[in-house]
Amino acid sequence: MEIRKKSLNDLDKRDPFQDIVLKPIGIVHSPFKNLKGIPIQFSMSKSRGRLEIFKEFMLGLKDLDGFSHLYCIYFFDLVKLPVPLQSKPFLVDKIKGIFSTRTPFRPNPIGLSILEIEIIEENIIFVKNLDILDKTPIIDIKPYIHEFDSIKSLKSGWLTGNIRKKIS
Amino acid sequence: MEIRKKSLNDLDKRDPFQDIVLKPIGIVHSPFKNLKGIPIQFSMSKSRGRLEIFKEFMLGLKDLDGFSHLYCIYFFDLVKLPVPLQSKPFLVDKIKGIFSTRTPFRPNPIGLSILEIEIIEENIIFVKNLDILDKTPIIDIKPYIHEFDSIKSLKSGWLTGNIRKKIS
Repeated sequence: MEIRKKSLNDLDKRDPFQDIVLKPIGIVHSPFKNLKGIPIQFSMSKSRGRLEIFKEFMLGLKDLDGFSHLYCIYFFDLVKLPVPLQSKPFLVDKIKGIFSTRTPFRPNPIGLSILEIEIIEENIIFVKNLDILDKTPIIDIKPYIHEFDSIKSLKSGWLTGNIRKKIS
Repeated sequence: MEIRKKSLNDLDKRDPFQDIVLKPIGIVHSPFKNLKGIPIQFSMSKSRGRLEIFKEFMLGLKDLDGFSHLYCIYFFDLVKLPVPLQSKPFLVDKIKGIFSTRTPFRPNPIGLSILEIEIIEENIIFVKNLDILDKTPIIDIKPYIHEFDSIKSLKSGWLTGNIRKKIS
């Protein structure tokens, strides 16, 4: 049965403290079978892989192939909670708050990667610059829209000098 | 008790089909008290607001104030499931797959906004260009890193001509 109706919950009965339950919409197929050698950022990866969107959600992919990049939102299912709230990131030897880093060890272990779309065949999205572990559950896919998402931010905090060092 | 150890689940016992349970790390305080008048994109918003990170996670904010922008990942708790997999987005009068749009009506109703950081005071992040409903649960905060996240994507699909029309 195709669902046509968009329905809303009651504005007055919201509970912002409630647990949030999500169901994976797909799974990542990647050359990275364990944690060794995974690129620390998608922008540093040359690897290809596939995002398998479960067939029940395939209709949702219509016209995604018109975009060159997508956001993949996924779940770091290997991370065991609770996590430390501060830790040393890869690029510097100083303690940082985890919300100022991209570490997978976060209170909600959600990952965000911007991947290049090569081609979409039925329910499979072939992507480039993959930095995600094989068999990782996918939570959402959104189009990357350069006009919205590419921000000329002036400050990249503690990363500023360190990125240049690592990228070049 | 401060947690210091990062632990991993067993690689061989993963189940990518399992439900994912998240706990909100904070709540949005916004001038948008109901759905009327919410900007359709953060890049089109001039509104200010506050991200209240629950005190138990405050240590995680260390050094976030060095960045000019952050990703706010949040839960569209008003959306009732299931949702249609294809619908007409705001900007055009054609049916699109929901994964090629930014509609809140998605199988996992997760939102992603890039917000400008004004100032951080204890557990409160004051932000600009807010496009999120008041009392929305926050799932994660990540730094926006221009060097990683600003991609000169060549194709913005069905949005290409339509964004220019709307923005200008």
